[in-house]
Amino acid sequence: MNKEIEVVLTPALLPLYEVTGKTVVVIDILRATSSMCVAFKTGVNKILPVSTPEECSLFKDFDFLCAAERNAVKLPGFDMGNSPFEFQNPLIKDRNIAFTTTNGTKAIKQSKELGSAQIVVGSFLNLDVLCNWLLHQPNNIILLCAGWKDKVNLEDTLFAGAVITQLKNNITLHCDSGLMAEQLYISMKDSLEVEVRKSSHAQRFKALHAAEDDVQFCLQLNTAAVLPIMQGEYFVSLQTQTA
Amino acid sequence: MNKEIEVVLTPALLPLYEVTGKTVVVIDILRATSSMCVAFKTGVNKILPVSTPEECSLFKDFDFLCAAERNAVKLPGFDMGNSPFEFQNPLIKDRNIAFTTTNGTKAIKQSKELGSAQIVVGSFLNLDVLCNWLLHQPNNIILLCAGWKDKVNLEDTLFAGAVITQLKNNITLHCDSGLMAEQLYISMKDSLEVEVRKSSHAQRFKALHAAEDDVQFCLQLNTAAVLPIMQGEYFVSLQTQTA
Repeated sequence: MNKEIEVVLTPALLPLYEVTGKTVVVIDILRATSSMCVAFKTGVNKILPVSTPEECSLFKDFDFLCAAERNAVKLPGFDMGNSPFEFQNPLIKDRNIAFTTTNGTKAIKQSKELGSAQIVVGSFLNLDVLCNWLLHQPNNIILLCAGWKDKVNLEDTLFAGAVITQLKNNITLHCDSGLMAEQLYISMKDSLEVEVRKSSHAQRFKALHAAEDDVQFCLQLNTAAVLPIMQGEYFVSLQTQTA
Repeated sequence: MNKEIEVVLTPALLPLYEVTGKTVVVIDILRATSSMCVAFKTGVNKILPVSTPEECSLFKDFDFLCAAERNAVKLPGFDMGNSPFEFQNPLIKDRNIAFTTTNGTKAIKQSKELGSAQIVVGSFLNLDVLCNWLLHQPNNIILLCAGWKDKVNLEDTLFAGAVITQLKNNITLHCDSGLMAEQLYISMKDSLEVEVRKSSHAQRFKALHAAEDDVQFCLQLNTAAVLPIMQGEYFVSLQTQTA
């Protein structure tokens, strides 16, 4: 029987869904889940998502690198912010990272609290690896868009649409958000960067004169053949046949 | 200066937005706001949205017709449910109606509680009249999709996209939900009924063997040149130059 897939357009709507026993794919294209994929490609050992910058900085004492972003800006005093370029640094290989971001880490925590069976991370950078893995794991699936402060955003929705488009023949979709995400991706995929640059978050980067290169970087397809998966409190890189 | 427009994809997200002083367009295409437009076209005097069927039935004593729907079905003991065909009956002319539905009346109540300046009702049936009026009223605009039990639905989002498409040159849009609604409408407008029949609510009608004709009815363009507007606790039909 085909697995069912649902799209949740923001974490604010997740409590409306039955999460228990499902696999949740957390999506924060600009930039948390893209950066996590880059980090594992670079060879990070494990990533600990934490809720607050204060909590994050505690882990300095335990030889973690500490990464903290709020409102699209790296917080002072931390090793890294949330830009994927920072996670390409070869010095982070084999290190552990504590990571807190405006939207992504919150979505991860919430998925865990609501009883998900598995939590993995999706981005355009690991699209194929993710989709392959989703097909072969046993659970129904929730694609959870991290959004922006509980509002819906374009880029996360488009990625949910990319996953649905790829899995189409092997899943059951009874979810209007999923139909919408799929249609949006189909109609925007040939001009993805142009469209995403119109989004509120890309406009936020532009206003800050920051992270504008990150937009293009985070829309690359399949440049990081990794699957970050949560084990206990940490994300590790799942060794898959395709990864 | 152009007015700003925002799209709220479900009432569950409305508390994230500044509602005070704005004009809210409540959208429940299948079927509350479509039926309200039909009712005013038929010549209803005023419509009172109420929260519960129990409250609704109290108004029988005051010579109201009472309309109540839950989960796409007319409740027993009421004069009407939520089908637009019921509101075409000439016997309802000049009558007052108390009306409660699964999603639409809740969205109306919430818009009022959050301090909106004006509340009007939109449907494909009154699209042009609505858009004309929106251009000439003074406030910034929220298009509030009633959704289904706080989840996002396709048909309400598509209507929000139709409004944005029509007002495009005269509004400011900094809202990803609005970009998404616009793009969805543009890419689906030539096969609107086919697409909406894939939606979860149309599928719900199909499973109930009910209201299937309502889908086609509610997607007609500009068949009811009325603008239902809230005055106090009631909706009345605004007399506009175009209506």
